[in-house]
Amino acid sequence: MKQVTLLGATGSIGLQTIDVIREHPELFSLFAIAFGKNTEKALPIIHEFQPKYIVVDDESARDKIIHHISYNPTILVGSEAMSDIASHPDVDIVVNAVLGSVGLDATLEAIRAKKQLAFANKETLVTAGHIVMKEARQNGVELLPVDSEHSAIHQCLRGGKAEEVKRIIVTASGGSFRDRTRDELKDVTVQDALNHPNWSMGAKITIDSATMMNKGLEVIEAHWLFNIPYERIDVVLHKESVIHSMVEFQDNNVMAQLGTPDMRVPIQYALTYPDRIEFPAGKGLNLMKMGKLHFSEMSFERFPCLKMAYEAGKTGGTLPAVLNAANEEAVHLFLQNRISFLQIEEFIQRAMDEHEVIQKPDLETIKEIDGWARRQVKSYVN
Amino acid sequence: MKQVTLLGATGSIGLQTIDVIREHPELFSLFAIAFGKNTEKALPIIHEFQPKYIVVDDESARDKIIHHISYNPTILVGSEAMSDIASHPDVDIVVNAVLGSVGLDATLEAIRAKKQLAFANKETLVTAGHIVMKEARQNGVELLPVDSEHSAIHQCLRGGKAEEVKRIIVTASGGSFRDRTRDELKDVTVQDALNHPNWSMGAKITIDSATMMNKGLEVIEAHWLFNIPYERIDVVLHKESVIHSMVEFQDNNVMAQLGTPDMRVPIQYALTYPDRIEFPAGKGLNLMKMGKLHFSEMSFERFPCLKMAYEAGKTGGTLPAVLNAANEEAVHLFLQNRISFLQIEEFIQRAMDEHEVIQKPDLETIKEIDGWARRQVKSYVN
Repeated sequence: MKQVTLLGATGSIGLQTIDVIREHPELFSLFAIAFGKNTEKALPIIHEFQPKYIVVDDESARDKIIHHISYNPTILVGSEAMSDIASHPDVDIVVNAVLGSVGLDATLEAIRAKKQLAFANKETLVTAGHIVMKEARQNGVELLPVDSEHSAIHQCLRGGKAEEVKRIIVTASGGSFRDRTRDELKDVTVQDALNHPNWSMGAKITIDSATMMNKGLEVIEAHWLFNIPYERIDVVLHKESVIHSMVEFQDNNVMAQLGTPDMRVPIQYALTYPDRIEFPAGKGLNLMKMGKLHFSEMSFERFPCLKMAYEAGKTGGTLPAVLNAANEEAVHLFLQNRISFLQIEEFIQRAMDEHEVIQKPDLETIKEIDGWARRQVKSYVN
Repeated sequence: MKQVTLLGATGSIGLQTIDVIREHPELFSLFAIAFGKNTEKALPIIHEFQPKYIVVDDESARDKIIHHISYNPTILVGSEAMSDIASHPDVDIVVNAVLGSVGLDATLEAIRAKKQLAFANKETLVTAGHIVMKEARQNGVELLPVDSEHSAIHQCLRGGKAEEVKRIIVTASGGSFRDRTRDELKDVTVQDALNHPNWSMGAKITIDSATMMNKGLEVIEAHWLFNIPYERIDVVLHKESVIHSMVEFQDNNVMAQLGTPDMRVPIQYALTYPDRIEFPAGKGLNLMKMGKLHFSEMSFERFPCLKMAYEAGKTGGTLPAVLNAANEEAVHLFLQNRISFLQIEEFIQRAMDEHEVIQKPDLETIKEIDGWARRQVKSYVN
């Protein structure tokens, strides 16, 4: 029986992780959860699994749940407590499904405690990949990706050795606005943007999908996870999202992982690796029913956020942290209807232009620059 | 430096194996070759690589080459000499690219001598899979497939454990007559049939491709190579032949291998496994240029040879040997313009119907039944 700590329990990935744990009570036990403010979604999980530790964002969240709990868990407040449950001696697996760079410290503590780490917190790798991967190497910990693209790459890489890889090909659905020209993006609404063709995801990542920033962050994540230079990471448009990504080896064999768009599949893969267990809940892939798979070239002109991400990745240092923080802030402003869709990329570019890159930043510097980029983007609104 | 014995050197796979060996003189040396009667194609190989052993079909082939050879190789006559060069102590790798069941003895001798075996001789597995695989298990030898479909499956299987496999999905281009109805097959010519849309192959396998018997033989081969029951081997029509085959694991992840239609890629894979080395000669896959991949259901009504193959495989015993021998003979008759295209399947079915299956046949029995099936098919013509 593996004891699981789940960080970000009430988000989209968190809830689907709960589904996987529920399906396999003989394999997994929910030891601890952390969530932000969403007590409505957290309480049923707490009732069902009775985790020993519960970490909440603030006192008000604690007050909201405490009278509804009929057993005696340890309830901790504040994001630093995430590190405690991520490194607790009784824990076997840590699922980091926290949104944004707030998951960084817990990731590092889980690595230092040599936990199996199922990783959905791409912002951590984007902003501090050099620090996280150095710790992972030093502690002999492999980060097991939960993103469907990186899970696909991880699976494809089993077909050869790291030094035999020629190219990683990340597929992109194109997001909600795939078939629109840039001109047609001027007046799109939040509702339009939230209508993703293939995947049911959280709001932030759905917007990131529409701007293609999500793919950009994934490229940076892939760079760090699989130690591949950006020149050998390509993105291809594949609107069906059936091929989740590919690896081309130097002998011209291309390996691909295919599947239905069901995040529980990569979550389960990360939880059970190196084993594969049955997945009774979901439907298998039926290619004959699909009939066709489409592929086309990705355009940096159409999707400037992807271009910015490659630039930030290649430049390195603090620039990816600026990219990520500016993007988080700009998407937040768009979701509040305070800026237009095209202003997202405009504000990110502006923050990146105004930033003087610091190479090999430490955690303190990254956090500082993260805050600076957010303040900058906010300042652009008024 | 690996010493290579190449059986079937002048066939399509044989010549492409020569290409791969030529590209990597630092890795491979051609120790011995066997060929049938095609001295025109054999002599340049002999001049270039000066193999120590040469095996030819008969005295007349020996007489034709002997005065053109400027060094002192050992020249042996008769197919039984193939076993000698397949099990010679100095040999590391045996490539069995012989066409038809004549490669059986050499396969067994190579296995007993624990050679690395690159295997393109599917008829051997079809007729005597139970004998070959038992020897392979006992000697700890893995048969490395050269067929693009089985190479794909082999590569996909690296993504998990054997007991985690749910299903093997073999792709089929549909062959030369993919878009014709059965009615439109009545008057097709040998020339029509030899015009395969994707692969450039030998005549016999191109006809097998048009009847879908090739896919049927591949299903039986996959059954033996990967120890998977027929109920869990599916065939799907995929006209571009870009996905060479797939493996679905029990966790709903589907692994696929993709590539351009270049047989040198799976040949090199089998020669270098478990390593992957560079393949400088060929073009890589460009999915964006392809644009679309198509998939559709395989019909047993449209392609009765595939149905016969499944039946022969499931029944087992001597029936697959009848299927294979009757098919070889019928295709031979078709290539000689002595029977029509649709008579190929008619004659195979008739031979299968007239056969009383013997279970667990020994080699002697298999050879006897092979001869019987050929005589039967010949007798149907007059």
